[in-house]
Amino acid sequence: MSETATPERPGLADLPALLAEQDWEAVQAVLADPAEPDIAHALPELPRSDRVRLMRLMPPERASAVYAYLDTGLQTELLEDLSDEEKTRLIGELSYDDAAAILDELPDAHTDSLMEMLPEADQQVLKALLAFPEHSAGRLMTPEFVALSPDWTVRQALDHVREQAHVGETLNTLFITGEGGRLLGWISLQDLLLSRPRTQVAQHYHRDLISIHTQEDREEAARLIGRYDLQALPVVDADGTLAGIITVDDVMDVVQKEDTEDFHKMGSVGVLNLSVKDATAGMLYRKRIGWLVILVAVNIVSGAAIAFFETAIEKVVALVFFLPMVIASGGNAGAQASTLMVRALATGDVQARDWFRLWGKELLVALSLGITLGLAVWLIGLWLGGTEVAIAIAISMVLVVITGSMFGMVLPFILARFKLDPATASAPLVTSVVDVAGIVMYFAVATLVLQMAGM
Amino acid sequence: MSETATPERPGLADLPALLAEQDWEAVQAVLADPAEPDIAHALPELPRSDRVRLMRLMPPERASAVYAYLDTGLQTELLEDLSDEEKTRLIGELSYDDAAAILDELPDAHTDSLMEMLPEADQQVLKALLAFPEHSAGRLMTPEFVALSPDWTVRQALDHVREQAHVGETLNTLFITGEGGRLLGWISLQDLLLSRPRTQVAQHYHRDLISIHTQEDREEAARLIGRYDLQALPVVDADGTLAGIITVDDVMDVVQKEDTEDFHKMGSVGVLNLSVKDATAGMLYRKRIGWLVILVAVNIVSGAAIAFFETAIEKVVALVFFLPMVIASGGNAGAQASTLMVRALATGDVQARDWFRLWGKELLVALSLGITLGLAVWLIGLWLGGTEVAIAIAISMVLVVITGSMFGMVLPFILARFKLDPATASAPLVTSVVDVAGIVMYFAVATLVLQMAGM
Repeated sequence: MSETATPERPGLADLPALLAEQDWEAVQAVLADPAEPDIAHALPELPRSDRVRLMRLMPPERASAVYAYLDTGLQTELLEDLSDEEKTRLIGELSYDDAAAILDELPDAHTDSLMEMLPEADQQVLKALLAFPEHSAGRLMTPEFVALSPDWTVRQALDHVREQAHVGETLNTLFITGEGGRLLGWISLQDLLLSRPRTQVAQHYHRDLISIHTQEDREEAARLIGRYDLQALPVVDADGTLAGIITVDDVMDVVQKEDTEDFHKMGSVGVLNLSVKDATAGMLYRKRIGWLVILVAVNIVSGAAIAFFETAIEKVVALVFFLPMVIASGGNAGAQASTLMVRALATGDVQARDWFRLWGKELLVALSLGITLGLAVWLIGLWLGGTEVAIAIAISMVLVVITGSMFGMVLPFILARFKLDPATASAPLVTSVVDVAGIVMYFAVATLVLQMAGM
Repeated sequence: MSETATPERPGLADLPALLAEQDWEAVQAVLADPAEPDIAHALPELPRSDRVRLMRLMPPERASAVYAYLDTGLQTELLEDLSDEEKTRLIGELSYDDAAAILDELPDAHTDSLMEMLPEADQQVLKALLAFPEHSAGRLMTPEFVALSPDWTVRQALDHVREQAHVGETLNTLFITGEGGRLLGWISLQDLLLSRPRTQVAQHYHRDLISIHTQEDREEAARLIGRYDLQALPVVDADGTLAGIITVDDVMDVVQKEDTEDFHKMGSVGVLNLSVKDATAGMLYRKRIGWLVILVAVNIVSGAAIAFFETAIEKVVALVFFLPMVIASGGNAGAQASTLMVRALATGDVQARDWFRLWGKELLVALSLGITLGLAVWLIGLWLGGTEVAIAIAISMVLVVITGSMFGMVLPFILARFKLDPATASAPLVTSVVDVAGIVMYFAVATLVLQMAGM
């Protein structure tokens, strides 16, 4: 990344010094250059009073852009420190989707009082956006787009684009709407620029529409944009009216957030809507303790299973030596299988209805993995425990790995079937449940084999 | 998602029937409507000869677009079945970045023979792109962009945009270049359209540049585009010349691929460059067996540790009952900690230098988790095993949870420090290593407490 600031010119790092000197002009000069996310990144390091001062030293449009990149905590704090007029301007300068996202996150009292200060027209738009369900396409979209009529000539359309350029979030893709705002199709700005000015828009636009309903999930919006490489996805309401657009940069954030959620769930961590760096120890504790307690409960059963086979253990203590190896392999194979399925379900690579086809393949893979590991422990068993022990652990290894893989593979599908998040089939959960089954199988097989051998 | 096909009109699902009837006109009609990714999705279900036929029935531009969405296996197969002329046209119609990506994936023999068939100019561009390191920004960029001169008037610039519209991958962001193609700044098409036609571009363009070097990692490109909400990121070479641009839809794919890789690694699965659905059982076996064998090796140590404490076990068999609970909790807490850190390092939320600050917080969290779980097992211990056992398992629970958390937290940072992928600190690896430490601690504490109690 190249920085434009030359060494002799003060940069963001010099802000504390310049603020202490009350050199407002120099501060303004420093704030003129960097990208807004960089300013937003520097703000939390400054004392609260300086933060307000900085916001006031920036031109309104820039201050709004910086504000949109701040964490909710800081946003709330700034609202408490700014005058009503300043607040209204701050929110008024934002695009509707950013404003809605911020109002949604703020404490209710702030949202209501802010809302009242805004112009009536803005209030209506924002209330309409906030009325859509959380995580819906309607909540993510911006109602700011450039729509063209099919009856216009290309020249008229281009004039309209020029007039409305300040409104649209993207101009690469333009949407064609008919009577009552009904979505008819789309045309790229490139095609429009290349078409003969006197021809009609109707002759050029594409009718093969990919669109999403306002009530659908935002993850589906991300999937469509990814799959069809769209610059903008049109969002329509029940009667087919174009209600807004979702641009590719909006879904980048969604994809990253959803992936982080899935990632955390796979590690048995609750959903954390905050950077690990910013989360307090208390928050992290609460996100983690729940699963740990649940897993302790599962492991009590493991303990009980081991206790049940006490006599077998007392007879052949060598069995305990091989226990971790066999049991852990089942859990690990299960964790692998669930990881593959959870991710494939999340990316849409695999659908719920594919489970049977994948089940057969997983069985084959699990069998091969089990036999390989079974052979390995058979050799170790021969060396350290004798023929009977070797046979017992090899057989139980095959069974445990197959059981673990099957459970890890099927659980995400079962969860998806009941509209639960497949990522709940976390590695630690799969491992713990498979442990129980593994212990029972291990000792059952071992007892049987050793009995048959007359031991 | 709304489909434009009405029920009475045949769709992609009717292709096999229409192909069997050799009704080429109907096939062409069906192929005219759907989005290219949908056609690409339908292709693998058809017999090989029909696939070639379909490619030939589509207009060249559309056939190329569909081709770009196919899996490498199918792409290679089609190249074998098409004539030289058809091949050249297929690749020639693609944008340079798509063509480079395809040539890169194909078997070398195919790449070389294809390359020779292309026009000299295309060959040069593609060879230059393919010369950049894998996973570099240079490999991801497209050299097709619209560059403006600062000396032009806005009118001249707009005329140039109109003329070059067919070249640029995005027109939302236009780049300003000076002598020798040196990157000077950028302007949005919106701003250009809104500026007075006779003024100079130099008066309007932005000098606050975010750019990336051709040799840098593509993940950094994704991070910059995400952080600064860019539509297009300029890529410059060593002397500051604009070499290409990376658009936001290009990095969407990168983000998804890298997230999938990290996801799989966290579940101890090797990197799979293919959908789970398309991977053969053999591939899946190879991606999984390696880690399972390594983990078996780690668990041999666990077994040895248990065997070492044989006499303690024989004295108080109740200890074995509590073993899974205590040991698994350490592993699970470790898996949680490593999951949080691996993801935070991957998204750039946390940098390697933050480790010390986070270490203190993790210690606090781990202590709280350990005490909570310690209290829980203390109660269970009192109920099922008596005072001494309760004290022994409570103390070891606290120690094991702290050890597990610390190990899970620190390992990703150590891996990052040595330029290894933090995601190698997978949940199963952390669990298995922590198990060994847990078993030793558990029995050591238990032996000590029981000795002190004179048992």
